[in-house]
Amino acid sequence: MKHGVLRLIPGFLLTILCAAGAAVDTGLEAMPVLQWEQKAPGVWSAVIGDAEEVTYLTYAGAPPKVDALAKMGPTAFPLNSEGIRGVVSGKRAIVRVPLGEAEKLYGLGLQFEGMNRRGKVYHLRMDHYSSGNEKLHAPVPFYVSSDGYGVFFNTPHYISVYAGVGNRHDSPAFPAPRDRNNDREWSAQPVSDAVEASVIARGMEVLVFAGPTPLDAVRRYNLYCGGGCLPPKWGFGFWHRMRTHADDAEVLNEIEDFRKRDFPLDVIGLEPGWHSKAYPCTFEWDPVRFPEPAEFVAAARAAGVRLNLWENPYVSPEAGIYEAIKPYCGSHTVWLGIVPDYTLPEAGAILKGQHAEEHLSIGVSGYKIDEVDGYDFWLWPDHALFPSGTDAQQMRQTYGLQLQKLLMEMFRASNQRTYGLIRGSNAGASNYPFAIYTDHYEHKGFVSALVNCSFTGVLYTPEIRSAKSPEEWLRRMQSVCFSPMVQLNGWADNTKPWSFPEVEREVREVIKLRMRMLPYIYTAFARYHFEGIPPIRAMVLEPGYAHEGSVTAGKLDGAGNPYAMATRKDVSDQYMFGDCLLVAPVFRGQKSREVILPRGRWYDFYTGRFAGDGQVIDVDASSSRIPLYVREGGIIPLIPEVNSISRLEAPVPLEVRCYGTEASSTRLYDDDGLTYDFEKGQFCWLDIVVEKDADGRLSGAISEPVGDFEPCYGGVTWRFMSL
Amino acid sequence: MKHGVLRLIPGFLLTILCAAGAAVDTGLEAMPVLQWEQKAPGVWSAVIGDAEEVTYLTYAGAPPKVDALAKMGPTAFPLNSEGIRGVVSGKRAIVRVPLGEAEKLYGLGLQFEGMNRRGKVYHLRMDHYSSGNEKLHAPVPFYVSSDGYGVFFNTPHYISVYAGVGNRHDSPAFPAPRDRNNDREWSAQPVSDAVEASVIARGMEVLVFAGPTPLDAVRRYNLYCGGGCLPPKWGFGFWHRMRTHADDAEVLNEIEDFRKRDFPLDVIGLEPGWHSKAYPCTFEWDPVRFPEPAEFVAAARAAGVRLNLWENPYVSPEAGIYEAIKPYCGSHTVWLGIVPDYTLPEAGAILKGQHAEEHLSIGVSGYKIDEVDGYDFWLWPDHALFPSGTDAQQMRQTYGLQLQKLLMEMFRASNQRTYGLIRGSNAGASNYPFAIYTDHYEHKGFVSALVNCSFTGVLYTPEIRSAKSPEEWLRRMQSVCFSPMVQLNGWADNTKPWSFPEVEREVREVIKLRMRMLPYIYTAFARYHFEGIPPIRAMVLEPGYAHEGSVTAGKLDGAGNPYAMATRKDVSDQYMFGDCLLVAPVFRGQKSREVILPRGRWYDFYTGRFAGDGQVIDVDASSSRIPLYVREGGIIPLIPEVNSISRLEAPVPLEVRCYGTEASSTRLYDDDGLTYDFEKGQFCWLDIVVEKDADGRLSGAISEPVGDFEPCYGGVTWRFMSL
Repeated sequence: MKHGVLRLIPGFLLTILCAAGAAVDTGLEAMPVLQWEQKAPGVWSAVIGDAEEVTYLTYAGAPPKVDALAKMGPTAFPLNSEGIRGVVSGKRAIVRVPLGEAEKLYGLGLQFEGMNRRGKVYHLRMDHYSSGNEKLHAPVPFYVSSDGYGVFFNTPHYISVYAGVGNRHDSPAFPAPRDRNNDREWSAQPVSDAVEASVIARGMEVLVFAGPTPLDAVRRYNLYCGGGCLPPKWGFGFWHRMRTHADDAEVLNEIEDFRKRDFPLDVIGLEPGWHSKAYPCTFEWDPVRFPEPAEFVAAARAAGVRLNLWENPYVSPEAGIYEAIKPYCGSHTVWLGIVPDYTLPEAGAILKGQHAEEHLSIGVSGYKIDEVDGYDFWLWPDHALFPSGTDAQQMRQTYGLQLQKLLMEMFRASNQRTYGLIRGSNAGASNYPFAIYTDHYEHKGFVSALVNCSFTGVLYTPEIRSAKSPEEWLRRMQSVCFSPMVQLNGWADNTKPWSFPEVEREVREVIKLRMRMLPYIYTAFARYHFEGIPPIRAMVLEPGYAHEGSVTAGKLDGAGNPYAMATRKDVSDQYMFGDCLLVAPVFRGQKSREVILPRGRWYDFYTGRFAGDGQVIDVDASSSRIPLYVREGGIIPLIPEVNSISRLEAPVPLEVRCYGTEASSTRLYDDDGLTYDFEKGQFCWLDIVVEKDADGRLSGAISEPVGDFEPCYGGVTWRFMSL
Repeated sequence: MKHGVLRLIPGFLLTILCAAGAAVDTGLEAMPVLQWEQKAPGVWSAVIGDAEEVTYLTYAGAPPKVDALAKMGPTAFPLNSEGIRGVVSGKRAIVRVPLGEAEKLYGLGLQFEGMNRRGKVYHLRMDHYSSGNEKLHAPVPFYVSSDGYGVFFNTPHYISVYAGVGNRHDSPAFPAPRDRNNDREWSAQPVSDAVEASVIARGMEVLVFAGPTPLDAVRRYNLYCGGGCLPPKWGFGFWHRMRTHADDAEVLNEIEDFRKRDFPLDVIGLEPGWHSKAYPCTFEWDPVRFPEPAEFVAAARAAGVRLNLWENPYVSPEAGIYEAIKPYCGSHTVWLGIVPDYTLPEAGAILKGQHAEEHLSIGVSGYKIDEVDGYDFWLWPDHALFPSGTDAQQMRQTYGLQLQKLLMEMFRASNQRTYGLIRGSNAGASNYPFAIYTDHYEHKGFVSALVNCSFTGVLYTPEIRSAKSPEEWLRRMQSVCFSPMVQLNGWADNTKPWSFPEVEREVREVIKLRMRMLPYIYTAFARYHFEGIPPIRAMVLEPGYAHEGSVTAGKLDGAGNPYAMATRKDVSDQYMFGDCLLVAPVFRGQKSREVILPRGRWYDFYTGRFAGDGQVIDVDASSSRIPLYVREGGIIPLIPEVNSISRLEAPVPLEVRCYGTEASSTRLYDDDGLTYDFEKGQFCWLDIVVEKDADGRLSGAISEPVGDFEPCYGGVTWRFMSL
């Protein structure tokens, strides 16, 4: 090709360029190869331009889990390091990471659509998600390749990631141009051989995480961010948020209603009405609705229920902390409330002091931090100024991280774990015990977000709020029961779990199943914490899964598809929950659905019957239960039915369900479920082992606990489901 | 209020901030008041930070029309200059322009939705429009206030404009915060007292245009950009684009079909198939489809038809100019074609030389420049490097301007006017004879874009391509006949004006009406050129128009509208066309429609009957004609029915239609319609005067031409339509 000739004579080129007054050498060779430094086993860093003082990892909840990374074994740098280049040119720091023709890319934030990110451009920014793939509640600039490595752009600015989009004229794998007039192989998007990204900054850090599998890369990312969070046990019970204007009596009545109707309840969430003023907020109890907060919180706790407080971070002039915090606030307000610059420690100290004194001291268990996402038309503008000098966009990308960090510090100081909700989070957050929630309310999108959060080091709850029919209510309730946080948010609609009497029994059943799964779920989170394995996982992170999604060729349509673009459909409507459970949610109106089973034998969770092996099965969706499948050798420990995890008392008997027909084993985790003592070693693991004798009979055994903690469990019933 | 107290003690504040290690003074007082310099009568400029070498106005088609600006009369700076502040802080240049509580804002680019821009944020950038208000084919950062002034951010970067959004805590009109819990007046968006905008750059120029009316501000903007374009007369005839693979014989047959079927035709557009290779392009005639281009162009011309050539700017390795232009190209390709950096004069010279030799010399009349807009996933990335050092985003914002400038220079060098199409344009383009077209194909949006282009100094054609029914075909055809360019684009669908036989007669009728209106339309463009008055105008630019649009209060809906946001509906489905004609397009399925008539008496165009006065009328939309109304005293000169403007021969008789019952007058413009000689004074104006005698009888007269040109008109028929 002609351009190949020119590439061979850079001297000649340079002469022409100089003659033309050219200012910039645009060639690939002018972009230096990055120099890598190993930061931890399987984790490498390179800096383009000037290292930034503050990055996403500045906000990480805990130091890297170096020991756990080392335990994953030695590994070489997973890419051809000669191909990774970066430069600061003009106002931009630019990086280029080569890409193989068959690679698929996953991640790039809490996405609500699709899964394979290759072939699109992502201008990742914190915003109120409504559609598209750029304005996200967690615009995490981390991706995982199907080839088994991860890349993280550790820069807290608005970033543009060209995920296998774009062709440099001098790129090593430049395809031959085609003629759209006559060549049927012409494509509106030629195959690109790189991921390229840039930020407007004087530099950026790039981190690479080794595999060898995509799950390994995700694990290394999570471990490097401090390991996944381990919420308190009560966090895995049922959460219910009150209508915004509820008062103390109404809350206590509601708790009583749950008891009378035999519905589980561990946490009540109070919405804006608990504040004396909200939007902007005082963070102080409303004297009319909650005249005696300490007594109120104690009464709820006595009924086995903890309290979670909603707030947004924008400070009302009526707030007691207003005068003290005002000097540390930005130029612009949000709903006319001032915006603290929490990169200044003084601002954080004021908020933590007030929260500790007025909430934590009387037993409040956590927070729901709202409105740290967007929209543009109510958040501070991109040009707002903050006293620390932090850029307003950077402040927006990280404000949710700042709040999580502050609150975590406060709870940690009193050695209490918390579990809460956050409206916007970002990279480095793996260790923060907060689930993201959204205003967007589309059931299929919710499930895609659950799937995609496994690539991003954040948790997400597809909370249920309302439904157009009993069927939808039940289907949403089932999905949320297989998520990091089971929450019914009745703030606007005043809904209750029994709001649709037609499905009250089925709703109760699935919530109770969720409660029974506590040991299984808690262990999954322990593995998230200690090993970096996400408790919810996309199928592509599962061994034996090989489904490629489908591509439909585009058809020329002058009005509808003038470039005859093909459409790709990823499978993002099923996922793994914990060690061995495959969840296949059903959506309103579905009479049946396809479930893709990875290689290996799979069994129906409810019946233990064989369901398939490495195949696509068609599932009758008319059952009132959510389809659940367990992999061969899967072991699921259950506790008895309870309505409040807070009221569990040792010894807790176990029912251990074993699936398949072969010998297998798993591990069960336990600790006090409340404090950070587990970080000092006060936890234990139990081995659950299923053996098969010569006659094919299975038997089970649980080991003595290994570790410095006496587990709460005692007494076991074995159920060999597939025999 | 408490914050008021703090504002009074900046010394105290400063002490606190210094103690806190604060780096930035975020106060309003720390942002300097802008210093204004009058650049032309009624036009002022101020620079924040460092002046940029290249701005949008660098690309303007002609120098400011200072004489015409002076003729508009003296005027004072239209805003309180003390309130306009700006600063460069961090990486951003920031500006703040105060805003009155009742002001409405119009403009901010070629928008397809709504009209009043107040209350939203606009991250204006060049892109393939599909929805929203940010990714536009003409992201012009100019707005006009209902208070009668215009503001233009003359900076060719991605810009974020907060149009009456955001509240600084120390802004002069800071509203009292409200409590969402208990105050029904709480709003998700408090009233803001400013427009604020920023770019990532070391500075920006801000221009202010005086009124006193919004139309005056628009006029001053257009005149400052060199005055509106004046296309050649043939440009106002009918344009028809061939299917992409048409060859020379098919084109000549099509021309003959138009003749046989009695349909007007002035321009045939050739789509990608004329190139030997396209996407990327060679710019060379395909030797199979067009073996003898000179003879072919001459044959079309002999039949009264000119040729317009499609191209995108991305150069194929097969192009003759490839080797020569390659040293001036950017790092990345588009469809694997190299991207010339036309900020380098050498690159432009190569393209102009080839185009002049191979197209212009054989009679090609102009171009359709495609693909200078987006999408991101096929244009060059934001981090592409260009040899001139021009930032890639800036290159994208201005690439359409660069191409228009080049082609205009080429045509001007041969003293031929051109008229063409451009896929992306921007500020400063008023003088460029190009109409924007889009892939977006929604009829109501098309009409809104027509309306909104009147605030932006660009032309736009709602070209027709296809339709789902004869009714839609007719309704779209009618809209495009009252636009800057009547074009049927059959590139993909191979449609013809007669594609729907059910409405062939009505389609012919409206196209012929358009042809007959040439003197009226050409005069409207002359006034665009000489006086800056847009030929298509939003109703809010019309005297006597006072409709406010409607606001529907929001209702709380947890899933659908959790902030109970109100929705505003602007009237953007009717507009002014030329001096006195109100166009009210009908859309598919409409049985009737409302038309808002400004104050004053209005008459039906077709019958001359009185239609209303400053009122909303309900129009029966079952007529096969498009509703048209003429203001009292409106005078519309028509020529006889013709099928090709190129074949008009002097003397051309006029039919002058006069509406209403009072004396009135207008002016009629003429020049050679082909060359730039009018810029040297070779044009004339004729006064058309209608007098009323004591008995109420009307009579008309046309003056001798004033100016250095002999008009083509001769012989007048007067029609007093409303008598």
